[in-house]
Order: sequence, then structure tokens, then C-alpha cells
Amino acid sequence: MKLYDSVMAPNPRRVRIFLAEKGVSVPTVQVDIGKAENRSAEYLAKNALGGVPILELDDGAILTESVAICAYFEGLHPQPPLLGTDARDKAFVEMWQRRMELGILSSTTGCFRNTHAFFKGRIPQVPEYGAVCKEAGVKQLAWLDGELASRRFIAGDRYSIADITALVGIDFGKISDIRIQPDQKNLARWYQEVSSRPSAKA
Amino acid sequence: MKLYDSVMAPNPRRVRIFLAEKGVSVPTVQVDIGKAENRSAEYLAKNALGGVPILELDDGAILTESVAICAYFEGLHPQPPLLGTDARDKAFVEMWQRRMELGILSSTTGCFRNTHAFFKGRIPQVPEYGAVCKEAGVKQLAWLDGELASRRFIAGDRYSIADITALVGIDFGKISDIRIQPDQKNLARWYQEVSSRPSAKA
Repeated sequence: MKLYDSVMAPNPRRVRIFLAEKGVSVPTVQVDIGKAENRSAEYLAKNALGGVPILELDDGAILTESVAICAYFEGLHPQPPLLGTDARDKAFVEMWQRRMELGILSSTTGCFRNTHAFFKGRIPQVPEYGAVCKEAGVKQLAWLDGELASRRFIAGDRYSIADITALVGIDFGKISDIRIQPDQKNLARWYQEVSSRPSAKA
Repeated sequence: MKLYDSVMAPNPRRVRIFLAEKGVSVPTVQVDIGKAENRSAEYLAKNALGGVPILELDDGAILTESVAICAYFEGLHPQPPLLGTDARDKAFVEMWQRRMELGILSSTTGCFRNTHAFFKGRIPQVPEYGAVCKEAGVKQLAWLDGELASRRFIAGDRYSIADITALVGIDFGKISDIRIQPDQKNLARWYQEVSSRPSAKA
């Protein structure tokens, strides 16, 4: 098995943190998206959509999409559970994972993609939409601060993939100046805790 | 249990089709998003983010996000499996579900939200971004046509949630003139089949 990873991008970091939490090590290939290696013919033959990461299985099958790759590893290494425990818990983790993805990670990546020089000439940028994403991300952080008043982690008492997505989203937001505000004490407390886990270095 | 549904919106339809495929009936409450009922104080007390659908459980817990609601019902009613069978298959269904969501459903909803009069004054619209979404959706349909040359359903030989998301995305795209093209024979064949299932009426 081989993981096509890219240290520059937020989505591969989700998988790296997930693997670190599982204590699982996978051979990796670095894909330099700055040099558009993910747009090379060789890479596009593996994933026509050009996204990173990719997990190449031993039989040659190609699994794309960060959360799908995480689900695959959850099946191989169920402990500690990061996608929930029983059917009900799994559904609520899925809810929180999606809320973090749609409200925070998509907002910070949407802002970056539409406003940052990195994507100039790579994609059709719409700076006005980037500003909408930024405003949405800022609002979501304020909302999340309130949610975290009553519990330790995003989805409850247990660390989960929702914490990973939120952490990656918030860290990636810094480049677009989407930040935890000084009055967001619950969010700051949560951020301090999840950032202190060894997996956060991944 | 009670499902807060809205006949006008694409995401609730994903849940309705999912339930129809399971043969499960759930008491529903219609939320009129045209009248902004999803922005009422009563609704926002259930889901501060204002999205539909919501599943209210018998103990009062509120589950939001269409795919999380589908996951909950998959746990209650495993047959027929719509989220995959074994761990590997579940990961690949997740991949295809996400590809359909990010590439097709998000493109058609992104175009609609940013260009249609319905959302004027409701959200900050950026028509130029709507045009980017439309172009992305059109490209994804062309890509998907090629993918469907080699298999019956989106994720393989078995109907899954990925087919539901693609069907809902494509049907919703019609209002923005994002359509299957006459030369996309594989996609047309797949569309004909999934649209003919009784669940498609949901």
C-alpha cells in the first residue's frame, strides 16, 4: 500500500493526523502540488480528478478522497475508533465531521483558493466568493465556540475525525486570516488540547 | 422519530430516496424554505445552521446532515446496504459518494445558490462563482460518462448512496441548464435506470 501525500495541502494532513492517532505508518510518496505534479499524466492516470491524497492498494486499486481513505484505515485498524462506536454514535460523528467540513474546512480552503496567489492561473479565481467564504468561516468559528461550551471534543467526550477536520481547517485558515478570536475561550481551550496531541505535528 | 423535510431542496430528497430504497417510512414535517421556515426561531433552536433535513430522535436528540441521517438509517435497517458491504467496499462507496457530492451536487447547488432569483437577498450571491460551478458541473458529467462505460452503477455493480447523490445532483442541475449531453450515452443509460426505480419519485 502506498499513500500519495502532499505536505502543502490541508486534505492530506487530515489523513496523516488520522494515521498518527491510529499509530499506523504507511509508505508515502510526496506529490509537489507547487510544481503541479498532481497534474502530470502519470498522476492523472491514477486520479483523473487530480486531488491528493490517494491511497494505492496492493492490488493496484486507487482510493481517493481523504475521508474515504480514513474509513478504509478505520476498517483495518478499528482502535481507537475515530469514526464513532455504535451505529448511533457513528451517525453523530458523521454529522459533526460534515459540519466541520462544510462550515470550516470548506470555508478556509474556499477563501484560499479564490484569493491566494498560489491558485492564480491554476483555477478560475473569484475573489468576491473568497470573501464570502471568509465571512462564513468567521461566523462558523463563533458558532463552534458556543457549541464547545458544553463538551470536550467536537462530537462529544471522545476525540474523532471531526476534531481532525476542524483542526486542519482552522490551521489552514490562518493564511487567510480566519482565526480564533480572543473572546472565543471554549474554542481556544479545545484548540490548545487537540494541537498538543502528538498527531497534530503530522 | 420525526424527519423535517423540504420538498423544494435537493438534500432532503437524498434522504427520501434512501428511505424509499430501504422501504422505511418515517413521520415527516414539511419545512417551507420558500417562506424561510428554516430560519424561524423554532427551527433554529433545533438546528442553528438552518439546514434541512433534520432527524429528531425519540429522545429529542437532533441529527442533521443528509448523509449522517442516511448512516443512522443504514444502522437501523442494514438491508439493502446502500453504504457498502465490507470495510473495503464501504471505503470505495464513500469515495464515490464524495466524488458525486463534490463534483456534481455541489456544482449544481453552487450554481443555483449564486445565480438563481430564489436566493437573492437570502445569501450573498456571486454570479461569477455560479458560472464557475456550472462549468465544473458540466466537466464532471463528461468525466462521469467515461467512468460509467465500464460499470452499471456509480460505485460498481450495486446501487448505492453514490447513485442517489448523483441523481439528485443531476436532476437539480436542470434548473441551471447543467444537463447530460446527447453524446453521453453511458451516463444517459445509467440515468434512465436509476430514474426508473420507484425510489426516484421520492
